[in-house]
Amino acid sequence: MGSESLRNMQANKQYTLSELTSGLEVTIKGDVNCIITGISILHQSQPGHISFLTNSLYRKHLATTQASAVILSEKDANACTVNAVICKNPYYIYAKIAEFFTTSHSFVPNIHPTAVIGSDTHIDPTAHIGAHCVIGDHVNIAARVVIGSNSTIGDFSIIGEASKLDARVTIYNKVMIGKRTHIASGAVIGSDGFGFANQNGVWHKVPQLGGVQIGNDVDIGANTTIDCGAVDHTIIEDGVKLDNLIQVGHNVKIGAHTIIAGCAGIAGSAVIGKNCMIGGASMILGHITIADNVMITGNTGVNKSISEAGVYSSGIIGVVTNQEFKKNNARFHRLENLTQRIKMLELSLQKFKEEEKK
Amino acid sequence: MGSESLRNMQANKQYTLSELTSGLEVTIKGDVNCIITGISILHQSQPGHISFLTNSLYRKHLATTQASAVILSEKDANACTVNAVICKNPYYIYAKIAEFFTTSHSFVPNIHPTAVIGSDTHIDPTAHIGAHCVIGDHVNIAARVVIGSNSTIGDFSIIGEASKLDARVTIYNKVMIGKRTHIASGAVIGSDGFGFANQNGVWHKVPQLGGVQIGNDVDIGANTTIDCGAVDHTIIEDGVKLDNLIQVGHNVKIGAHTIIAGCAGIAGSAVIGKNCMIGGASMILGHITIADNVMITGNTGVNKSISEAGVYSSGIIGVVTNQEFKKNNARFHRLENLTQRIKMLELSLQKFKEEEKK
Amino acid sequence: MGSESLRNMQANKQYTLSELTSGLEVTIKGDVNCIITGISILHQSQPGHISFLTNSLYRKHLATTQASAVILSEKDANACTVNAVICKNPYYIYAKIAEFFTTSHSFVPNIHPTAVIGSDTHIDPTAHIGAHCVIGDHVNIAARVVIGSNSTIGDFSIIGEASKLDARVTIYNKVMIGKRTHIASGAVIGSDGFGFANQNGVWHKVPQLGGVQIGNDVDIGANTTIDCGAVDHTIIEDGVKLDNLIQVGHNVKIGAHTIIAGCAGIAGSAVIGKNCMIGGASMILGHITIADNVMITGNTGVNKSISEAGVYSSGIIGVVTNQEFKKNNARFHRLENLTQRIKMLELSLQKFKEEEKK
Repeated sequence: MGSESLRNMQANKQYTLSELTSGLEVTIKGDVNCIITGISILHQSQPGHISFLTNSLYRKHLATTQASAVILSEKDANACTVNAVICKNPYYIYAKIAEFFTTSHSFVPNIHPTAVIGSDTHIDPTAHIGAHCVIGDHVNIAARVVIGSNSTIGDFSIIGEASKLDARVTIYNKVMIGKRTHIASGAVIGSDGFGFANQNGVWHKVPQLGGVQIGNDVDIGANTTIDCGAVDHTIIEDGVKLDNLIQVGHNVKIGAHTIIAGCAGIAGSAVIGKNCMIGGASMILGHITIADNVMITGNTGVNKSISEAGVYSSGIIGVVTNQEFKKNNARFHRLENLTQRIKMLELSLQKFKEEEKK
Repeated sequence: MGSESLRNMQANKQYTLSELTSGLEVTIKGDVNCIITGISILHQSQPGHISFLTNSLYRKHLATTQASAVILSEKDANACTVNAVICKNPYYIYAKIAEFFTTSHSFVPNIHPTAVIGSDTHIDPTAHIGAHCVIGDHVNIAARVVIGSNSTIGDFSIIGEASKLDARVTIYNKVMIGKRTHIASGAVIGSDGFGFANQNGVWHKVPQLGGVQIGNDVDIGANTTIDCGAVDHTIIEDGVKLDNLIQVGHNVKIGAHTIIAGCAGIAGSAVIGKNCMIGGASMILGHITIADNVMITGNTGVNKSISEAGVYSSGIIGVVTNQEFKKNNARFHRLENLTQRIKMLELSLQKFKEEEKK
Repeated sequence: MGSESLRNMQANKQYTLSELTSGLEVTIKGDVNCIITGISILHQSQPGHISFLTNSLYRKHLATTQASAVILSEKDANACTVNAVICKNPYYIYAKIAEFFTTSHSFVPNIHPTAVIGSDTHIDPTAHIGAHCVIGDHVNIAARVVIGSNSTIGDFSIIGEASKLDARVTIYNKVMIGKRTHIASGAVIGSDGFGFANQNGVWHKVPQLGGVQIGNDVDIGANTTIDCGAVDHTIIEDGVKLDNLIQVGHNVKIGAHTIIAGCAGIAGSAVIGKNCMIGGASMILGHITIADNVMITGNTGVNKSISEAGVYSSGIIGVVTNQEFKKNNARFHRLENLTQRIKMLELSLQKFKEEEKK
């Protein structure tokens, strides 16, 4: 089965534009009965598909798209030559329409016979526990939860209603997860925080007594790690979205509806506000506080608290040829020399002025 | 079961201050028979709990803490209005006292019936092999070892006495692990080093023949990866502490009692000394050598060998508003222009001086 | 069994120099019948071993090596006092010779009885499915494929001939993998891309409908993550080599024979050309395009498209003492002040000149 047949997996479904947009705040310009059988991007679309324009980089493809309909905002509507689904937030409307075309695995409520279940553990009969899962003691798994295969859940943990763990997730002890939260494969939640006390040159482990408290509607990416708290819990509030390969240290608190891109790192006891956006590979120092509604651009090192909403950055950006880079780099390391030369110039000029006055 | 009841999990235990500090070098100011039932942080403490002051950021909470006792150093003792456990190294003393309040799972010595064990493999009868583990051939698992569920151990590997692997750990072939070493979930030890030889535009794999040698009392964080050596072994000496999501390339050697924070990367054949401290997200170039007792601050790119003990850094730090950042960034890229302008000023001034002499 | 006995695991094999180099473009200076029993590095070699010189850092050890033969290039041949295997590309020739000394586990064709296999799934009788694997529905596993233990393969995925997944790999749904591709432990392929649409302060998941298409002879490192496409597929072309802990976002395309070092991150919809080399911890912005034959040095932030082959970098490198760093850092943040002082000097000088003219 090649790439084409995979692409055709969407093709068994079909809806009218009117069905797809029922209940959404949109205006349709064109034929509301137009049949839509799939989704594709503007410049690789085909008749029968719906497409979307959410990034101005791709506006140039609007004129030539083969799609039967395009989701876009008012300002682009006139340039659209096919059926237009006009709305204020095309990416959100696209998200809602795309749900019609998902083909996710449907999990039947059951505990796979190979799963190993601890004692004093409650699993709701509507939950699905995948093959080779290992569930600890005193665990509570709520209705419609899905635990992917080869996952491990530690003692005293709680998985809230309709939450979904993909395959190969680790939940340590004392991790509380809310409702409708999704955790991708390889994520590790509740591992010991990195606490070691140095006594005479030797590092001694500081017991990590806390758990992790994760809210509702949280999304945690593949191979992301979240440590348990040292004393109290590490806290991830409702609606937080974490990408892949993010490290969250012990006792971090991430406020509701904050979104963090891949490869970021958040050191222990940092407190991040609500509705923040943190760019990829950004590093947040421990024990600092970031206000609500802060945006941190990618690759930023946040080395101190930020008390006001706004956009923040650090360092230097701008990729250049390595030849140019070497010059920049050398100039940077000669900044002290430049400063001294300016000081000399200022002194010389001062002398001139004084001599003139005479 | 909510957050409160989890917090109360500690509450079944109780000790006197005197019992908690027995054998430790501390001076108690106050009631040595005071009953302690749990641990909490200074500003969220309650009567019956012991707290600690190890970071000056939190000193302000000392006056108002509700704790029954506080672990702190001499200089803070006078400001303490409750029972004081006075010592030279409060974080270390805290670590020792916190051990009384850990509630870790106790593993019974057994091989779970779902575990799959290879041939010519020796497992000590006091070891615990978790559910769904897969242990290879010619493996040696020593006394009191715990292998967490869903872990895989490759052929010819050795796990030393009382070492503990959490759930979902991968140990490849030819990995030797010492005593009392702890490996967190998702860690991968002994994967092939990244060696490829380019011949006519195509990369050919260079076989990775070595193993990994890990000492005693090492701690390896969640989802951290350590590659096997290309010819000889990759070496992690005694007492090394590695945080989460760290990459250790082939043939790296990390000296005893060195500690490395999360998201760091160490390229192949780098040699790091003993008792070093390496900050989070630091990147160490391959084939370089770092002396003993070197401290690398976070986010540093170590691009050359460091031959003397000391504190080292690179680049630029300091988060600012994006507006300010854009100015900084532009100024940096205009450094050549600044240099030329200084040169012009110097020439002009030189001319003036020469004309004056006339 | 200690380190020495592991080292001796190679020792059961022996070949003549002539056997080891049969079919390779090399010139042997010395005894073609010399018996070789193992491989070691130049400065830790022993009689009977073959060694290699591929990095000029190690040339100093050529004079004192105890190896019986050394693989090296013409220019180093005269300095070699033992048997010399002279060739144009010593690292490639070393790779070919090292294959004789690998001791990898041989997998018998079988489906382990603990593996759980879905419906409508085809597994070639010559394939090996490890213990505790979970294979989904409509999966196709070709001849001589090896699936390591505790791995999970999602529905509608395809694993091509002779590809090898190590232990604990996750393949999600709709992932197509070519022939002879190798995936290390902990890697996660096909997790949902990081797509969320913000509506009134709440992030809504954007369904990720695409798959992942991976070519032939690809190598994917430990704990590396590759997201599925949002609409179309994420694409990794033939011969691509990815190190450990790399994040590849949705709809990224990586061209054939490109190699990427550890801890790098590639944001969604970035397109990377063929035959590129991307240094460790480099971060590639989303939606940009990088031409063929581009080399990106380590730690670079690529913030815009690169349209021509060449070597590119960003930022500042050079580790220094923290004392020196603090000065550099302060100077950088005073660049505006420097610029103003230069401007003042220029104005003063201008005045002088004007006054002189009078």
